[in-house]
Amino acid sequence: MAQLQPVATEPLNQADDPSSPVERFGTDEPLPLDAGAVLAPWQIAYQSYGTLNAARSNAVLVCHALTGDQHVANAHPVTGKPGWWDTLVGPDLPLDTERYFVICANVVGGCMGTTGPASTNPETGRPWGTDFPLVTIRDMVRSQAMLLDRLGIESLFCVIGGSMGGMQVLQWAASYPDRVFAAMPVATGARHSAQNIAFHEVGRQAVMADPDWRGGRYYEHGVRPRKGLAVARMGGHITYLSETALHRKFGRRFQDREAPTFTFDADFQIESYLRHQGITFVERFDANSYLYVTRAMDYFELAADYGGVLAEAFRGTKTRFCLISFTSDWLFPTRDSRATMHALNAAGASVGFVEIESDKGHDAFLLDEPGMFTAVRGFLDAAARARGIA
Amino acid sequence: MAQLQPVATEPLNQADDPSSPVERFGTDEPLPLDAGAVLAPWQIAYQSYGTLNAARSNAVLVCHALTGDQHVANAHPVTGKPGWWDTLVGPDLPLDTERYFVICANVVGGCMGTTGPASTNPETGRPWGTDFPLVTIRDMVRSQAMLLDRLGIESLFCVIGGSMGGMQVLQWAASYPDRVFAAMPVATGARHSAQNIAFHEVGRQAVMADPDWRGGRYYEHGVRPRKGLAVARMGGHITYLSETALHRKFGRRFQDREAPTFTFDADFQIESYLRHQGITFVERFDANSYLYVTRAMDYFELAADYGGVLAEAFRGTKTRFCLISFTSDWLFPTRDSRATMHALNAAGASVGFVEIESDKGHDAFLLDEPGMFTAVRGFLDAAARARGIA
Repeated sequence: MAQLQPVATEPLNQADDPSSPVERFGTDEPLPLDAGAVLAPWQIAYQSYGTLNAARSNAVLVCHALTGDQHVANAHPVTGKPGWWDTLVGPDLPLDTERYFVICANVVGGCMGTTGPASTNPETGRPWGTDFPLVTIRDMVRSQAMLLDRLGIESLFCVIGGSMGGMQVLQWAASYPDRVFAAMPVATGARHSAQNIAFHEVGRQAVMADPDWRGGRYYEHGVRPRKGLAVARMGGHITYLSETALHRKFGRRFQDREAPTFTFDADFQIESYLRHQGITFVERFDANSYLYVTRAMDYFELAADYGGVLAEAFRGTKTRFCLISFTSDWLFPTRDSRATMHALNAAGASVGFVEIESDKGHDAFLLDEPGMFTAVRGFLDAAARARGIA
Repeated sequence: MAQLQPVATEPLNQADDPSSPVERFGTDEPLPLDAGAVLAPWQIAYQSYGTLNAARSNAVLVCHALTGDQHVANAHPVTGKPGWWDTLVGPDLPLDTERYFVICANVVGGCMGTTGPASTNPETGRPWGTDFPLVTIRDMVRSQAMLLDRLGIESLFCVIGGSMGGMQVLQWAASYPDRVFAAMPVATGARHSAQNIAFHEVGRQAVMADPDWRGGRYYEHGVRPRKGLAVARMGGHITYLSETALHRKFGRRFQDREAPTFTFDADFQIESYLRHQGITFVERFDANSYLYVTRAMDYFELAADYGGVLAEAFRGTKTRFCLISFTSDWLFPTRDSRATMHALNAAGASVGFVEIESDKGHDAFLLDEPGMFTAVRGFLDAAARARGIA
């Protein structure tokens, strides 16, 4: 089989009625967006684990990455797979849910229950599609702050997240310094690089080149741009790994054969693996959300709001920071974290920085990385003592 | 404009009747292919520069890269642009056409006049499409050897090429050691890595996901998979550059605007640049050729023919080698050239190795790189003295 053959599945049904708690905001509680538009009504879907203590001082906000969602530590409602950070979040795990109240919300622009392009546009009764306004990382953070207001959580013990989640962590620390006691931006940077924008643009063009995209209005035609989104995911996925990891896991090994077939079949294991990644992704993710959320990352440049000086984003902050990077991450290489650290130092912030030796590339932050677990546990323990959390 | 809008142009007409010399081989002169098929009749299109000397000792074969062709140092017949290596090949240039007779042939599987998927299948009178057999780097070299036989060139003074061209150089040295006096593999490796296969596979899937690909038979439908091929080219192009070069050339600068538009337009210069690369590429290149030639690169693993021991490919060679790599090339990093050098050393070959400091990535071999020019000129001068070329 030479071509991608994504399996047709039921349309996504999580956008309006997610399999998780959801907070709905009426026309009197609009979400203003950086693009100038206002979302009203709108909603935000989230998950939580553990219990908020009486002092309301033990809340940890987990921010998810590009294709993540709120299902951090429970089975995914669409795929049935384990939560994406269930190695980190749970009883006795580094983000100990017997100690902390852990919340994760689907980002605005997403497709798992927070308002996004797959959600119903209240003005038309049909999915927004590309009529949905563009969103930014700051919009995501603003919506999360409104959720926390609704939940009665004034101050977060910690905000933590990797990749795009880490961008939100940095934005939280900059936008709401008094609400963030501790911050852990993992495998991220304070701006998206030209190369990263380039990879995202290729993914978007792959989606939009699929005729089933229908100008973004595919929902109404009962189709989805499956092949385009699968190609986008395949390309993206390469950037989440490392050359070393690819060589170790796949090398030039053939898939279920001894010799090349001299066809366009997936002769190599790496091809078979990538196709699988692409095909399974489209079962759970909305193509337009992919466009919107990649765009939000591309637009992210925290310093731009502070006269181009990143340190100004953190001026006077009392938040304590711990940055984590991975040696083989070429999407957000260590130098990106180092730039953030320099800015935090310049702002006089409390900051630690852990570079973890790993050959697993950017995806290391989602994988079994003892060095990361140790760093998270240690940093949170110290911060909890400082905040007086038992 | 959010979507790629490749301009419709005339169908490629170079496949059967190229704007360059062409040698035609009849049914009595078949080209046997590694895939087991035999091409007969078939043809090979080439360009030449300079004059073959009386001793027939000054011929240099240039091998082109994935999307290159025989038009090394003359205006391209389709685009009108200068030859792709006209900084290196010409009078008084490092590959001095007043001294050497320079030949470059379009690869088998290509679309510029050597038999490939866009060529007419003699059995049907229609373009081959995906009925064309898969080709390998060794097939390319075998076809070039037959061309040289036809031209009466028994021995090459030098074989030189970058990227896929460099793979052909290594294959030449292995397959025809007595016909290669000197060899310059540039920015290449003796096998294609898992990561490189991965990027190629994404590009192929982008082409095949385009409904205008029509199962490879688009020629007969008067269409071409323009968007799919443009997406493939965009993705590929990122890998030819370096993060540093992208940052230097584009950074996060906006294209003809002061602020983001909050649309899917090409806000960033890098997006605009990539789209341009994609759209212009489809004017001159056949989508099926892209599938075949990327596949040939993926299959390349020179050691596989020699019991897995690369040194055995060069055992007893008298060819003198000069390898060139570039520090910022992450497609064929220096370690790939170093592995080839180790094998050549183990085989007792004469080998020099130049790693050139450059931030221009893989594409450096096509660009104005004085270090490369110096290395080529110096190596060829010494080799010419050794061969007694004036």
